Amino acid sequence: MDDSLVPFFKPRGIVVIGVSTSEGKLGHGIARNLTNCGFPGPIHFVAQRGGSLFGRPVHTDLAQVPDPVDLAILAVPPAATPDVLRTCGSRAIPAAIIVSAGFREAGDEGARLEALCLDIAHSQRIRLLGPNCIGIIDTHLPLDTTFLQPPMPPKGNIGFVSHSGAYCAAIIDWARGQGFGFSQVASVGNQADVTEVEMLAAVGADPNTNVIVLYLEGVSDGRRLVAIARELTPRKAVIALKVGRSEFGHRAAASHTGALAGSDRAYDAAFENCGVLRASTSAEMFDWARAIALCPAPAGNRVAILTNAGGPGVVAADAVALNGLSMAVLGEKTRRDLTDILPPSASVRNPIDMLASATPGVYAESLQTIAKDGGVDGVILILPPPPMFRAEEVAAAVLPVIRAAGKPVLVTLMGSALTAVAHDEFTAARVPVYAFPEAAVSGFAALVRRTAPLSSTLADLLPPQVSPTIETLDSMSAEDLMASCGIASARSALARSASEAVTAARELELPVVLKVVSADIPHKSDADGVLMHLQSEREVSEGYERLLRQVRARRPEARIEAVQVQHEIAGGADVILGVVRDPDFGPLLMFGSGGIEVEAMQDVAFALAPVSDEGAGRLIRRTWAGRRLAGYRSVAPADEEAVVNALVRLSWLAHQHPELAEIEVNPLRVQPAGRGAYALDVRIRLTDATPANQPIGTRTVA
Amino acid sequence: MDDSLVPFFKPRGIVVIGVSTSEGKLGHGIARNLTNCGFPGPIHFVAQRGGSLFGRPVHTDLAQVPDPVDLAILAVPPAATPDVLRTCGSRAIPAAIIVSAGFREAGDEGARLEALCLDIAHSQRIRLLGPNCIGIIDTHLPLDTTFLQPPMPPKGNIGFVSHSGAYCAAIIDWARGQGFGFSQVASVGNQADVTEVEMLAAVGADPNTNVIVLYLEGVSDGRRLVAIARELTPRKAVIALKVGRSEFGHRAAASHTGALAGSDRAYDAAFENCGVLRASTSAEMFDWARAIALCPAPAGNRVAILTNAGGPGVVAADAVALNGLSMAVLGEKTRRDLTDILPPSASVRNPIDMLASATPGVYAESLQTIAKDGGVDGVILILPPPPMFRAEEVAAAVLPVIRAAGKPVLVTLMGSALTAVAHDEFTAARVPVYAFPEAAVSGFAALVRRTAPLSSTLADLLPPQVSPTIETLDSMSAEDLMASCGIASARSALARSASEAVTAARELELPVVLKVVSADIPHKSDADGVLMHLQSEREVSEGYERLLRQVRARRPEARIEAVQVQHEIAGGADVILGVVRDPDFGPLLMFGSGGIEVEAMQDVAFALAPVSDEGAGRLIRRTWAGRRLAGYRSVAPADEEAVVNALVRLSWLAHQHPELAEIEVNPLRVQPAGRGAYALDVRIRLTDATPANQPIGTRTVA
Repeated sequence: MDDSLVPFFKPRGIVVIGVSTSEGKLGHGIARNLTNCGFPGPIHFVAQRGGSLFGRPVHTDLAQVPDPVDLAILAVPPAATPDVLRTCGSRAIPAAIIVSAGFREAGDEGARLEALCLDIAHSQRIRLLGPNCIGIIDTHLPLDTTFLQPPMPPKGNIGFVSHSGAYCAAIIDWARGQGFGFSQVASVGNQADVTEVEMLAAVGADPNTNVIVLYLEGVSDGRRLVAIARELTPRKAVIALKVGRSEFGHRAAASHTGALAGSDRAYDAAFENCGVLRASTSAEMFDWARAIALCPAPAGNRVAILTNAGGPGVVAADAVALNGLSMAVLGEKTRRDLTDILPPSASVRNPIDMLASATPGVYAESLQTIAKDGGVDGVILILPPPPMFRAEEVAAAVLPVIRAAGKPVLVTLMGSALTAVAHDEFTAARVPVYAFPEAAVSGFAALVRRTAPLSSTLADLLPPQVSPTIETLDSMSAEDLMASCGIASARSALARSASEAVTAARELELPVVLKVVSADIPHKSDADGVLMHLQSEREVSEGYERLLRQVRARRPEARIEAVQVQHEIAGGADVILGVVRDPDFGPLLMFGSGGIEVEAMQDVAFALAPVSDEGAGRLIRRTWAGRRLAGYRSVAPADEEAVVNALVRLSWLAHQHPELAEIEVNPLRVQPAGRGAYALDVRIRLTDATPANQPIGTRTVA
Repeated sequence: MDDSLVPFFKPRGIVVIGVSTSEGKLGHGIARNLTNCGFPGPIHFVAQRGGSLFGRPVHTDLAQVPDPVDLAILAVPPAATPDVLRTCGSRAIPAAIIVSAGFREAGDEGARLEALCLDIAHSQRIRLLGPNCIGIIDTHLPLDTTFLQPPMPPKGNIGFVSHSGAYCAAIIDWARGQGFGFSQVASVGNQADVTEVEMLAAVGADPNTNVIVLYLEGVSDGRRLVAIARELTPRKAVIALKVGRSEFGHRAAASHTGALAGSDRAYDAAFENCGVLRASTSAEMFDWARAIALCPAPAGNRVAILTNAGGPGVVAADAVALNGLSMAVLGEKTRRDLTDILPPSASVRNPIDMLASATPGVYAESLQTIAKDGGVDGVILILPPPPMFRAEEVAAAVLPVIRAAGKPVLVTLMGSALTAVAHDEFTAARVPVYAFPEAAVSGFAALVRRTAPLSSTLADLLPPQVSPTIETLDSMSAEDLMASCGIASARSALARSASEAVTAARELELPVVLKVVSADIPHKSDADGVLMHLQSEREVSEGYERLLRQVRARRPEARIEAVQVQHEIAGGADVILGVVRDPDFGPLLMFGSGGIEVEAMQDVAFALAPVSDEGAGRLIRRTWAGRRLAGYRSVAPADEEAVVNALVRLSWLAHQHPELAEIEVNPLRVQPAGRGAYALDVRIRLTDATPANQPIGTRTVA
């Protein structure tokens, strides 16, 4: 982490400015929590009225506070904040938390105040956390700068970085009821200065944290988030809940790629790239975090289910399939040993149903037998209120076995009053407990996904030989651009009369396709602007006139520039390749089923550009269009290598040329293996930032 | 419900046979619960040792028990059960619950015992519940025949019918912790006699039950379940968790339809038909049940979100979109009124963020304002631990408003210790409470889905004019069968030489398609057995030889019967229609994207046959292939009416002819609107039950 953040987490001394004796005031809560949390360094209070609070003097002036002070917590009204910050600067305090609300989130006046605070912080070399945040908790140091209701969360290994203070408060209290704790909690509020990306790095550097949970409403610097997460995730798990998913498709888009690449797709691609596990609900986020924080890494995805009743076992088995995990096949010795332990009508195949009569001892022995099986990577232990014993007796019997297992054992403890004591025993022993089998299996699935290797890092990637080196895209033809990506274009020529079309067709070789060329018609087929399979010169000649007639009928207002005559490439698989520039994460590469039904079929996948050969292969296989390239029933294998090559080069083109806003090849017609692929239609849009300073519109291959 | 089940729910007297003084024995637990539950009628105990228990005499013989006795609960060892049942018969006791395990689930010996018990029950006119079940609970009567740990679940309006006794036990205890109760619980165990279908009807007849939750491991009579649920769901909600979902594709299948129609698809189609809401997890099942049991029906799907913090509001808004609901647009008056109530920086657009300062009074006033808005169909009220107030103060303030709202208000109460009192207050007031916004929104979505009307009932359906009436399918040609469903077949003829093929092509009109005909080649294109677009007689002649060559190269062992010459129907949209017979639910109709990629694309939907025009339209619109029939960009509208007509007739054919095992039209080529549709290929398989007594294999249109 950045050294400038150290004072937030390891301050040599802290001052709270704006403490209050009235309960209910933020400055009261902060003073109370800081006093009670057990922070090992000096704590000082400042307030205009002076006096004393929680056994400490309240200074009336920051100047009275003795050195060292590394962290100031400001609980003063927004209007007073700039002056107080200046005083902190004059005391050379390197870090400040602004707790109060009433800044940018409250309107223009607040935004001006926030900007002023940031100016002061910059000039005085103060790092700012907030405003409008609840600050920082470290349960191990310990440190608690928040005003939340006591007690602090219990100690744990989960770090939590959140854009929402209320979410922090709610989650801390909820987690208490679930029996798990946190290592560090950091609320970044309006992040005038310190952002969630910096906080991810800081919490990631904490030795007591092994899982970091992110509640994100956006991202301050997407590529930096990816870089920091890539560094972290091989050592520590990162789980994110990215909210605002429903704001799809708010961008103007001239291509299928653009229309599909909502910011949510960009987050998916970014998280996939850097190994961040994306949770879909609040509960799932912590179901996963508990499993990863408390369990050893599994060697594979083979699950054994141990239960004393059939029903929950079937529910768990369903969840195993739905999560893409495998049901472990028990070894013969395991089954034999289980037969010795269990009654004759028990099931010694996975799910292992010990029957309702299972004693605590039977639970423990069975678990031990299963955990020893080399074909089992993890166990879901299911414990509904046992009819003949107390759940806590079972907990006591299985806990030593779980500790010694060396494999993940996730407990489904179903009930409340009848299982409350067992719940406490499991959680005290740091065993993850779930109310239902589905959540436990989801936790194990997260453990397995966590072990997946990252795709090659950007640093490992070598750009492919793109020759010649392109200086500006502005004056390049689409054909040359395709050629620079190793993509052949179907041979074509422009015609402005039927006879020109016939001549062109003769040169290009029949059959041909005719397409209208008009800047007013971005989607040619929507305007009846395409004629295919023209087999003879007569058909070409008649086709030319027919094409113009039908386009004019549909779009009387469009200015028709010419008719493109294109040699028709027979057969092959049509796919779409595209790049679009995401405002947060930069160039995104798209691959999928091409044609005119791209948005309807939704058979597309995205990756951050650039990609390696292996990354392109992974992207391809995430779609049906891509899996089909390898051959399907009577469909022969297509030239997947040509597609990989095209994707890699296209991704580097986008990476190296920020002036490229969108490029889309639709369709790319992929020939049988070894015979390449042809771009049949290409759209290109440059950003405003290019020398030409405006989009150049749609350029077809010509 | 069947009158014979009345004694289980309203017995005039009960006897427990096999009571015990030892705690931990089933016969002890049952006697204890029955004694303590408050059952208003006479209770008697029988055991060999006699004595007394819980203040009642224990008779040594059933003969000593005074009349009336309508229900016997048997907690005797399996081997003793048949004799005890006979005694019950001699006393003319009409209903018995066999609690003990050790019957069919325990192996062959147990299965024999269970069959014997059923024989006795039949001959003595006793209805049997179980064996291997926990019996029945009615919290309102009250009645508790189980051996579960006390106390009984609290009173409620949710009925629960379960194949798993352990699931009942666990859910009852879990629900207690969540603060909700049950009206009736029925565990059916091995269902030797009384099945889950009968219990659904029985619990559905209970006036205190308005939501019935089913935990299903299978179904005893699928069509009867559908019929009973259809009768119930207009009045009472039925929610099902069907487990065993992962056992997909276990059937041998000769068609795409058969391969895709796993039993899980049949359950989906059946539940859709009868308005049963299918939950995907245990937690979801009760998230939905609580919402429906406690809230009034919403008039529409427009949700308002009221929160004191942005984060949870965004999470809720995401869930609204993901659940297919709408964010309510607040009326101008509502926004004006909210502006008066809330501070200037609050958000008076949905989600309504009152800010952290929101007092209990502000919560109540804002809720009242929103609930009055005619554009709001329901409210998600979000309450994280408020920083300045206690959550219970907010609960007290909003409860009268929720009661008076006349619209669903679902509360997201985030936390545990800090919200425990509020939780109790909300649940005591019968307001549904959820730990996270996602679950609350899911609950509202269930309320909305619950209001969807059922498709026409079977009784409402009139069979379409199928002429001529078909007596047996066995000797019909595929063409005639298609014609009977109103489906035209592409004109075709068989050829056994190149010159025959040319003659046929001349008669049929060029272009033509050539297809190999061989019983050994069910999937022609997999064997290179199809040639398309043959435009001239020369191409047909050469094509004939080429087709034979390439098929022989691929399948040297196949016996080639002939080559089918088929007039090529140009253009149109290719779809697939199919019927397959499900062992539980009878004929299932399939529609979707046709071709050879049916399984890979998975763009298919299923419905129970027969269907009405409206049902066929609904089925069509559940797939992209179907939505595209109405036209898409440059794709002109196709003849959807012809498809609807074909689906309806096909579904009736399957309904009226149980000997039809599978039929699949792939592709059906749908022409532009008004111009019909052509079957290009048809497969038919009859069941073993036909007079011919074996599948007739694949018949192509010829």
